[in-house]
Amino acid sequence: MSPSIDIDIREETDVVVSNPLTIDSVTTWRTKTTVPTGTAPFTSSEMFKSPSPILKQAADYLKIPGLISLGGGLPSSEYFPIEEINLRVPNSPHFEAATLKSGGIATARKHDIRNKISQYDLEVALNYSQSTGSPQLLRFVTEHVEIVHCPPYSDWQCILTSGNTSAWDTALRILVEKGDYILTEEYTFSSALETAFPLGVRTVAVKMDTQGCLPESLDETLTDWDESARGARKPRILYVIPTGQNPTGATQGLERRLELYRVAQKHDLFIVEDDPYYFLQIEPYTPPDEPSIPPPSSHDEFLKALVPSFLSIDVDGRVLRLDSFSKVISPGSRAGWIVASEQIVDRFIRLFECSTQNPSGISQIVLFKLLDEQWGHPGYLDWLIHLRMHYTERRNTMVQACEKFLPLAVASWAPPSAGMFHWIQVDWRKHPGVRSGMTHDSIEMAIFKAAVDRGVLVSRGSWFRADKSLIEENMFFRVTFAAAPADKISEAIRRFADALRAEFGL
Amino acid sequence: MSPSIDIDIREETDVVVSNPLTIDSVTTWRTKTTVPTGTAPFTSSEMFKSPSPILKQAADYLKIPGLISLGGGLPSSEYFPIEEINLRVPNSPHFEAATLKSGGIATARKHDIRNKISQYDLEVALNYSQSTGSPQLLRFVTEHVEIVHCPPYSDWQCILTSGNTSAWDTALRILVEKGDYILTEEYTFSSALETAFPLGVRTVAVKMDTQGCLPESLDETLTDWDESARGARKPRILYVIPTGQNPTGATQGLERRLELYRVAQKHDLFIVEDDPYYFLQIEPYTPPDEPSIPPPSSHDEFLKALVPSFLSIDVDGRVLRLDSFSKVISPGSRAGWIVASEQIVDRFIRLFECSTQNPSGISQIVLFKLLDEQWGHPGYLDWLIHLRMHYTERRNTMVQACEKFLPLAVASWAPPSAGMFHWIQVDWRKHPGVRSGMTHDSIEMAIFKAAVDRGVLVSRGSWFRADKSLIEENMFFRVTFAAAPADKISEAIRRFADALRAEFGL
Repeated sequence: MSPSIDIDIREETDVVVSNPLTIDSVTTWRTKTTVPTGTAPFTSSEMFKSPSPILKQAADYLKIPGLISLGGGLPSSEYFPIEEINLRVPNSPHFEAATLKSGGIATARKHDIRNKISQYDLEVALNYSQSTGSPQLLRFVTEHVEIVHCPPYSDWQCILTSGNTSAWDTALRILVEKGDYILTEEYTFSSALETAFPLGVRTVAVKMDTQGCLPESLDETLTDWDESARGARKPRILYVIPTGQNPTGATQGLERRLELYRVAQKHDLFIVEDDPYYFLQIEPYTPPDEPSIPPPSSHDEFLKALVPSFLSIDVDGRVLRLDSFSKVISPGSRAGWIVASEQIVDRFIRLFECSTQNPSGISQIVLFKLLDEQWGHPGYLDWLIHLRMHYTERRNTMVQACEKFLPLAVASWAPPSAGMFHWIQVDWRKHPGVRSGMTHDSIEMAIFKAAVDRGVLVSRGSWFRADKSLIEENMFFRVTFAAAPADKISEAIRRFADALRAEFGL
Repeated sequence: MSPSIDIDIREETDVVVSNPLTIDSVTTWRTKTTVPTGTAPFTSSEMFKSPSPILKQAADYLKIPGLISLGGGLPSSEYFPIEEINLRVPNSPHFEAATLKSGGIATARKHDIRNKISQYDLEVALNYSQSTGSPQLLRFVTEHVEIVHCPPYSDWQCILTSGNTSAWDTALRILVEKGDYILTEEYTFSSALETAFPLGVRTVAVKMDTQGCLPESLDETLTDWDESARGARKPRILYVIPTGQNPTGATQGLERRLELYRVAQKHDLFIVEDDPYYFLQIEPYTPPDEPSIPPPSSHDEFLKALVPSFLSIDVDGRVLRLDSFSKVISPGSRAGWIVASEQIVDRFIRLFECSTQNPSGISQIVLFKLLDEQWGHPGYLDWLIHLRMHYTERRNTMVQACEKFLPLAVASWAPPSAGMFHWIQVDWRKHPGVRSGMTHDSIEMAIFKAAVDRGVLVSRGSWFRADKSLIEENMFFRVTFAAAPADKISEAIRRFADALRAEFGL
């Protein structure tokens, strides 16, 4: 497709709204923001952020009334063989499938914009779009970012992505060159590493504790960097999963984040914050005999209970936040967003034009209907609280099963406070094979196989090691509490316990 | 997400079906192919191609009954807040929105697989998937490819992509290195060039006539290749848009394709066939006073009326075909597919795992419901015939308006036989500005602006030039007949004619 000339005008702002946006002020602010509703209109999160004193307000859209475009190769909507999409969705406060009759039906037709029924319709969603994503969904996302993270500098922007894997690949293509090193946590998301390696990018592993990445280790690595020994310039990119880290489940507290940010400032590092588990921050662990913790009593209380993101403390524009609907709505939507400074976002827009273009318009209109039209911001926060309570329960089930079944002589863990993953350390030096010369690797493999033989699939910790050239001191297994039903979680841990007992002769 | 262990078994084949598949034999063949219906199951087009004597038939899937996976970070479907999607779609033979009450309603619920209502459901579509795309949609696409193109070698494969732009970007990342040259048509899709240039890839322009790429020019370029003068090895990749070429509208006849293929064999070239307009091959142009041509009387007649693709003549596995639903169903779906040899497809799978992963699951289930469950192959071919007749009419409207309005003293064209684009040559040397020293570029710009001033947006031919260092002999403007309604097409051409008359003082 070719770029289209958009027909729209940005209005001057004369309403006073809170800056930053809150969920209460969104409605007022929306009376002054305009969603361009044409096919593939130009859009920018600048159109939806609340006004800031240093923000330039310009009517920078071309308006040519009556123009007929023979320019772009966009098919006519009469050739889209989908006339209507209806969604049945659960609604707050209970979100129960059983009460779905009191839930909502969201409908998208071809000409809802023309017929003034909605600001988004199939005529637009099923056609090409700009590589920012549609204004309709981008507005919701921009408002959400401002409500939750409130970036402390003015020229932040967001655009939609096709999910964090694609966004991370794009970030690497923009930010690093072949031969560069990037900094990652000692154990990290294996797919993030597999994305980097084929680009000729190498990793330096930063040591971790139960809060993830250690600032001293980061500082030391950079301070001691020896260009000639390493054969590469000093790393400029730190990749972190700050919340419910994959695979360790570690969550950095605010103090830890501030310390890491100061090290980043000292060495002029750019931080890529891959944070799909942000809203899977859960309540503290309670053993079976203690009463469970009630949900947050208000949206404010909920938002205040979340550890601030790196984006929230980023005064320099040195953070690229990768965010996604995968863990909170649907991974299949392949839709997420990034937040960063305008210069960085502009590079993403250019690269998306020549790669993914934009997330599926079908995904976008489904998300818009659900998030904007059915739920709105309050309903979405209710949903996120609902998830928080369910994941709290799942984590409790998992940790309780570990307490009940795992042999404490060789297994240890800390209950995770966010995410989907529980990280179990195994004292491999107690394995009888050590005496007969079995290596760390072969013992880990033996335990993995013993678990599969007993009908449970776990992930080997070594799969997630950032620097495979280092000797691995410890041994871990990653298990998830996201997927299986509660009774299966317990049974699976019982099987894993059997495998450990058999392997260690306990 | 981590890879899941799939639970499925490929059955041995004992039914006899036509090889290649036809739309009549699909039903029989499907009784022996199995669609894995779990979340993110392993899939391969090998599972859906009809049996071939040299094809290895192996039960190569792992079966572990009762295994509980704590391995991959896949959310449970109870946390997908979309319970049901209903689609209203037009049906064959008339596909009229007006008769939609006789059209179809396709429904996808969360547990249609478990409840034996469908082979695909929201539990699977809304979760992560393998980077092949879902087996459900991949099966339809594989069968479609075999029915239409019937690749003449056995180890061809297809997988789904996030559209041709993303597939082309991926192809470049796999097939070329920084500094390489690729071969393209003299005028080509500007976005394809913009994808190549930032990768450090340069282009060599192959001369064209009304059938596109000239074999002699291709052969000459390669025969005369001077590595030291060019500072690069001989090009190995030819990028072509063989049908309804963007921007020229040219379609290569079968003879032309065979000649180009022979040159590719001679120089061991790999052909990337970017062919989104394949099913926009239309009937020959008829002037207003002649009766219009009736639609093909059968599916067979329709398929035979299409020029065979490069894939159809590829005996060596040297063709990568990029195909897409963008021009025939919906660009917003961001879903397409590739066909190539197993080795090439395997590289795509690996790169997709670390980039786009797969097209949106929401797009995939919508396409599956429409194409497989509502229409089936016969209904889809009816739809494609329906499009063929509508685009024939649109092209006729466009060419008739050109005949009526454009000044023949300076404008000339050939009626396109496929695609969305009409390519108008303008004899710029007759422009009065030539005498006062205006350049080709400034005259093209002046005509473009004169058209915009009169309310019509056209595309400048120079935007599509593959090698901007060459002097441009001729001048062209690209107009599309895909987008505007019939009366607007005529009016737009009238305005463009006014602009030409004003510029040339006619």
